[in-house]
Order: sequence, then C-alpha cells, then structure tokens
Amino acid sequence: MNCCRANCVLAKLNMNFKIRAATTVDCKDISRMIMELAVYEKMPDEVKISREELERDGFCQNPFFQCFVAEVPDENKPKEGFAIVGYALYFSIYSTWTGRSMHLEDLYVMPQFRGFGIGKGLLTAVAKVAKEKQCARLQLNVLDWNTPSRDFYAAKGAEDLTANEGWHLIRFQGQNLDALAIETPKN
Amino acid sequence: MNCCRANCVLAKLNMNFKIRAATTVDCKDISRMIMELAVYEKMPDEVKISREELERDGFCQNPFFQCFVAEVPDENKPKEGFAIVGYALYFSIYSTWTGRSMHLEDLYVMPQFRGFGIGKGLLTAVAKVAKEKQCARLQLNVLDWNTPSRDFYAAKGAEDLTANEGWHLIRFQGQNLDALAIETPKN
Repeated sequence: MNCCRANCVLAKLNMNFKIRAATTVDCKDISRMIMELAVYEKMPDEVKISREELERDGFCQNPFFQCFVAEVPDENKPKEGFAIVGYALYFSIYSTWTGRSMHLEDLYVMPQFRGFGIGKGLLTAVAKVAKEKQCARLQLNVLDWNTPSRDFYAAKGAEDLTANEGWHLIRFQGQNLDALAIETPKN
Repeated sequence: MNCCRANCVLAKLNMNFKIRAATTVDCKDISRMIMELAVYEKMPDEVKISREELERDGFCQNPFFQCFVAEVPDENKPKEGFAIVGYALYFSIYSTWTGRSMHLEDLYVMPQFRGFGIGKGLLTAVAKVAKEKQCARLQLNVLDWNTPSRDFYAAKGAEDLTANEGWHLIRFQGQNLDALAIETPKN
C-alpha cells in the first residue's frame, strides 16, 4: 500500500479507516465518487470530467490537484484489502491579502460510512498539508441548502464569508468565456 | 519594456494603454494597488502581504500566481515612459466537474483611469490565457454591494453562482486552521 505516513490516521471507533495520498490507481474510485457527490448536489449533468483526465491532471509532473482517499477494510473482498469510501481533493491558491492558501474542492464520504470520523480525518489531513505549506487559509465552497456540510464546517470553526462579508462566486464559461477571450478594446 | 506581445493591447480611445505580463519590478505598484483595492472593499486591515512576498511567490520557478499590469504614458515623467494604473492577478485552479480552470483573484483599475476599457483589456488578457490553457471556466469572487463590478462582469456574460445556485465561500484561518491541523480522530 502506498501510504502517506505523515498524514496516515487510523481510527478504531466502530470503523477502521485509513487516510492516504491518492495514486493513479484510485482515479476510478475518485471518478465514481465525484459523480456521487454531484448527484447529492443535484447537478450530475455538470460532470464532464473523465477518469483519464483525472489521471493526467492529478499525477503529472506539475499536478493541478492533490487528493487524499479514505480506505476501510473491504468486507466483500477481505483477501484483497481495502475499499475506497471517501476523498478530499485540494490544490494551492493565492490570496493578495495573506499569500499562500489552500482550496478544498471536494470533501466526500459515502453515506453508509458517515459518522465514524472519516470526513474529519480527510479534512484534518488537508489542513495539515496547508500548514506544512505555510498557508494562512483553507477555503471551500458549499451550497446554502447543504446544512449537514455547513454545520460540519461551522462546528470546526470555519467562517461563512458569503454570509458575513457578502462574497459571491462569479463564473465565465462556455460561449461567454470564448467571447471574452476574443474581445479587443475599441480603437 | 518587457512586453507580453501575445496579449499586448493598445487602445486609442482617449487613453493610450498597454497590457503586459508583470515582472518583479512591478511588485511595488502591484502591492500599492492591492492596498487600494482592499480600501475600496472596506477591509484594508486584512492585507498582510509584503512586496517581497509577492516577488518571491509570483516570480519563482513554480509561481503561485500570474499577473498582468496596465500601463499608460506617464505624463509626470514623460521621458521615463509609463505608469502602472491597473492589474489582474490570476492562477490555475481545478474543477472536478470540468477540469482545468482559472481563478481571477484581483482585477483593479485606479479610479481616475476607469472608463477607457482598461479593466476590459485586463479581463480579456486573462480570458485569453484561460483559453490557451484549455480552461473551461474563469471565475472570481465579488462583494455583493460592489454593484459596479457585478454589473461589469454581468454585462460580459458572467453568471452569479451564489445567487443562482447558492454557493457560499467558507474559510478556515488563524486558530481555527491551527486547531484543525492538529486534530486526531477519536480512538
């Protein structure tokens, strides 16, 4: 097992689990869980990414993201070892106010494995990396109706900057981005 | 002049200006404008970053951000050339739905130079890079009371995902991030 020892956690409260850095082999499971999360977020049609793109973009020389996965003993395949039941996908960003920061793009645990501290273990693993990389912030986006997740983050001290300061997420994509890229100032 | 020719734009509507990639020499001006923008956003005390940190983080072998600056002829120093009056600071991010994306952290034009297409020129320059890097999205965060900026982005086709889908920006920082990083699951 390719275990990231520095961030390896083993909990024994009802459920053994292990958090480790993802490898290319995990992209099949990560891809499956990306879709499960998108279904939960009621936007499954938005998922355009393939397992091959994840392998290419996450495991190249200058990867676009890093990822932890959560494993539990696989009761269906006891001789083969572990099953992947959660993931946390993150990458470095930058703040012009505080410098190096970390963005948590996805944090997901399969429903039947919730309540055992796996989500907390994944979040802690990402926070450790953020601190190691001298990031002043760890941030993420969450849907307003996703009360379980908002409560989870709030319980750990996260601040809702949309509610408290008024930040809105704005996006160009598709034809709008294409049009913007070919605009030229008036002469 | 170290001009990024691929993204070089010259407008002749009342105000000549030029958009080019920033160099370390520009960090003094970028640092000044970061504070001007924070004052406009009513959060000047949040700015902790130094010019030296910008130089280190933006112009190393694997920079944390890229930046365009806008120049105009410097009427106060006509022999010396140009003055920096705006900037757009951006970096690559990643979406587990659409893959490679671009985040625009700051877009700023000094008040007396607004209305000449400089902001549009900076935004277009970043959009061109996003397309060159095969990004499906260009996104940013804007304050809800900042109507001029929200109108500017909306006029160019940007979607407000906080208003339309309910995304909230959540952040850990300071003691909350420290505490998160040292948490261990219950045994």
